[in-house]
Amino acid sequence: MRDKKISEEFLYYRIAAVIEQQIIKGILKVGTKIPSLRTICREYGVSQSTALQAYYHLESKALIEARPKSGYFVCGSPRKLLDVPVVSNPAEHLFEGTIDTLVSKVYDNLGSNEKYIPLSLGVPANELLPIAKLNKGFVQAMRQMQGSGTAMAHPQGNEKLRTQIARWAFAMEANLEADNIITTSGCLNAISYCMMALTQPGDTIVLESPVSFGMIQIAQSLSLNIIELPCHAETGIDLDMLEKTLASVPVKLILLISNFSNPLGSYMPDESKKQLVALLEKYNVPLIENDINADVYFGNQRPKSCKTFDKTGLVLWCGSVSKSLAPGYRVGWVEAGRFKEAVLKKKLYHAISSTAITEEAVAIFLENGRYETHLRKLRSTLYLNYLQYIKTINDFFPEGTKASRPKGGFVLWLELDKKLDALEIYERAINQKISIAPGKMFTLRNQFHNCIRLNFGLNWNEQTYESLKTLGQIAKDLLHP
Amino acid sequence: MRDKKISEEFLYYRIAAVIEQQIIKGILKVGTKIPSLRTICREYGVSQSTALQAYYHLESKALIEARPKSGYFVCGSPRKLLDVPVVSNPAEHLFEGTIDTLVSKVYDNLGSNEKYIPLSLGVPANELLPIAKLNKGFVQAMRQMQGSGTAMAHPQGNEKLRTQIARWAFAMEANLEADNIITTSGCLNAISYCMMALTQPGDTIVLESPVSFGMIQIAQSLSLNIIELPCHAETGIDLDMLEKTLASVPVKLILLISNFSNPLGSYMPDESKKQLVALLEKYNVPLIENDINADVYFGNQRPKSCKTFDKTGLVLWCGSVSKSLAPGYRVGWVEAGRFKEAVLKKKLYHAISSTAITEEAVAIFLENGRYETHLRKLRSTLYLNYLQYIKTINDFFPEGTKASRPKGGFVLWLELDKKLDALEIYERAINQKISIAPGKMFTLRNQFHNCIRLNFGLNWNEQTYESLKTLGQIAKDLLHP
Repeated sequence: MRDKKISEEFLYYRIAAVIEQQIIKGILKVGTKIPSLRTICREYGVSQSTALQAYYHLESKALIEARPKSGYFVCGSPRKLLDVPVVSNPAEHLFEGTIDTLVSKVYDNLGSNEKYIPLSLGVPANELLPIAKLNKGFVQAMRQMQGSGTAMAHPQGNEKLRTQIARWAFAMEANLEADNIITTSGCLNAISYCMMALTQPGDTIVLESPVSFGMIQIAQSLSLNIIELPCHAETGIDLDMLEKTLASVPVKLILLISNFSNPLGSYMPDESKKQLVALLEKYNVPLIENDINADVYFGNQRPKSCKTFDKTGLVLWCGSVSKSLAPGYRVGWVEAGRFKEAVLKKKLYHAISSTAITEEAVAIFLENGRYETHLRKLRSTLYLNYLQYIKTINDFFPEGTKASRPKGGFVLWLELDKKLDALEIYERAINQKISIAPGKMFTLRNQFHNCIRLNFGLNWNEQTYESLKTLGQIAKDLLHP
Repeated sequence: MRDKKISEEFLYYRIAAVIEQQIIKGILKVGTKIPSLRTICREYGVSQSTALQAYYHLESKALIEARPKSGYFVCGSPRKLLDVPVVSNPAEHLFEGTIDTLVSKVYDNLGSNEKYIPLSLGVPANELLPIAKLNKGFVQAMRQMQGSGTAMAHPQGNEKLRTQIARWAFAMEANLEADNIITTSGCLNAISYCMMALTQPGDTIVLESPVSFGMIQIAQSLSLNIIELPCHAETGIDLDMLEKTLASVPVKLILLISNFSNPLGSYMPDESKKQLVALLEKYNVPLIENDINADVYFGNQRPKSCKTFDKTGLVLWCGSVSKSLAPGYRVGWVEAGRFKEAVLKKKLYHAISSTAITEEAVAIFLENGRYETHLRKLRSTLYLNYLQYIKTINDFFPEGTKASRPKGGFVLWLELDKKLDALEIYERAINQKISIAPGKMFTLRNQFHNCIRLNFGLNWNEQTYESLKTLGQIAKDLLHP
């Protein structure tokens, strides 16, 4: 069923499935050479990149292997793909305290002058960004803006950018209008204004579990109580548990990532999104939908969002270009539905307006098709990276290691043997200049001690490969001292 | 006493004082021509600009007048300079509600496509900004930053900018260090993080009265109680009242502008600043010092700040380039003393980091002396504008009009006849495409109905002159219908 769904979305996947069947049925025998990439391109009428994706996919399942200068061969002993982590099950009670110390520990290192492999980050590496073209947009912005962007922008944000955001959101079929979009200084900043507009200290909110540590920190900064709900690694938040919670606790808002969540990489099917929106209406609870990863999908088209199904303005849809274009620009936005005025006031009162010139530069980039060209490349790179990660983890991590199956985004969630402590792995890895994010950063409950989040938004090269190999060895050493 | 103090600070003032004495003693008689600007330059060894300032000053006191193509002449009937408004006296009780409706009304107009004379604003006009040179800095920033500024900056902010801020603060003799400075998305944003770090809803804070409406709005956004204290138009907050308040009410923080306050333009003498810091220590109350206008002084050097006298880290010193360089860049900062970590966390949790490339561009501008060159010009322009405003108001406003005496900044505070209602003036003015800021925007108490704030950070030209003249006529018409 899942495979069928994927096959509709991925062209490469259909090709891989055909070859997989040929291997299983013995048409392609163990040890024999399979058709060259060029042959695949000709036979299926696809690009070199799609053919390569198909072969990477087969490689990640350990069905074929590349031999230098010889081509691809059917493997001797096909192994099972890594299992998916089980549904999370946050404990009832909070552990006291915060995650701040751990988060600081992990990221303070990266700010130092020493070079670390930043597997702990959740943003794309510089090498994956279209910097030269962005710079052109910047120079153009300087030329065409009144006062070259020195003048204060309207509190609601650059109009050209708001128009482009609405245009881009077309693909999610939500009929957004520029006039309802408010720009912010990045997506977290958008979430901040939404939360400030919707809550008072002491209020209770619902988050996914595991959840990006930033969401925990912002909620704690506003003195909110957090309920973490179980999540399935593939389909996201447990809707039954959500309904039970809404029926029994006065929840002020829900905050989640419906498309390619962080750190789990889950992706809510349209049906779940619809059900979630129905729950919002039934219980009159707003949803802050962090849709920051939606443009970085591995399928054939941008997925829909909860906002797509929102008819009553209860969804506050937040996004940014920080994960797909320029983290350092701090350009984000929110379409806050019926809460537009309240959210706009928070922006106005706490910052007056956002940076005019970066907003214009991004608008120019979105306007002229450069963004789609860039995204096509970025998506393909990230997907191939993901496959490389899976294959390498399969090869070098202890047996029983489970991995999430993100259908977009930048991060992979690993569940290791229960006997392993990710903090110990962290300590050994950092000594070898590898930075990873331990699972305990993503919850306030007593869970995920054996989980880690890995960033695959890096350049895939020998160094990345070696760092994964090293991590696998560390895990094995700890497991069998 | 006050005159003696000014004479030490202003060269032009000494020259004007000499000529004033000559007029008073009859050495220069009514109707006679006084020495040409060129003569003054030669005799006193000063620049044309200083000589011009001296003559503008005498003109603003109506002691001399310019006659086209003939030069300057001693006036027939020297009039008294406009009086200074009396000390404000905020009522004990709040009026219920907010100032939001009024503030929106005043500024929503400016966002429209119609052209208004923006006397209601508090930022410099585009024409006064060094746009071409800023653009150069921007291009340089793109070239020299890793990833051209697309990479996420350190949460504390661009190091080069923090170094330059510390370097610039040298003139205020506070020994600031780059390592203790946190950049923010403008000064209001810095104040926001400070207030979020220091208060809980329901806490009480002290503000000046009148006070910039933004300070009222941010405090209300955080559900804080506001005590407005009386202010002297020349020397700022009433320190006796402040001590009485601190002794009787649990005040969580004080927020004020010690140098060239907004809207009153007051300037706390060093002695008052020292006294204020002593009170902070005595009552262990932090001060958020909004020092946004300090670089735009009319005297000979940058004034000291309360931060200068702060030995215990109770002063959170905030600034930005929004009033002096580029409002639209949203580049601000705070040196938060002993509260550094708490404020940094608020920035990290609510926005992660600030825009990397605008910070670098401003750093480059500050680094190479362009800023001082620009400021010298800006200060001189603003001071001359101020004199022109005073002279024009003297000529056309009803008798008894009082005006503040800002020694820096952009805004003038007028106190009109008690029978006048500034909201009525606003309505009549906006019909003539002139936007002013009525006094009631600057308080939550029942006061300032007859006051207005005027922005003199505009290009001084026929249009500006005519708009002041029109305002004067509106006031006269309302007074004598």
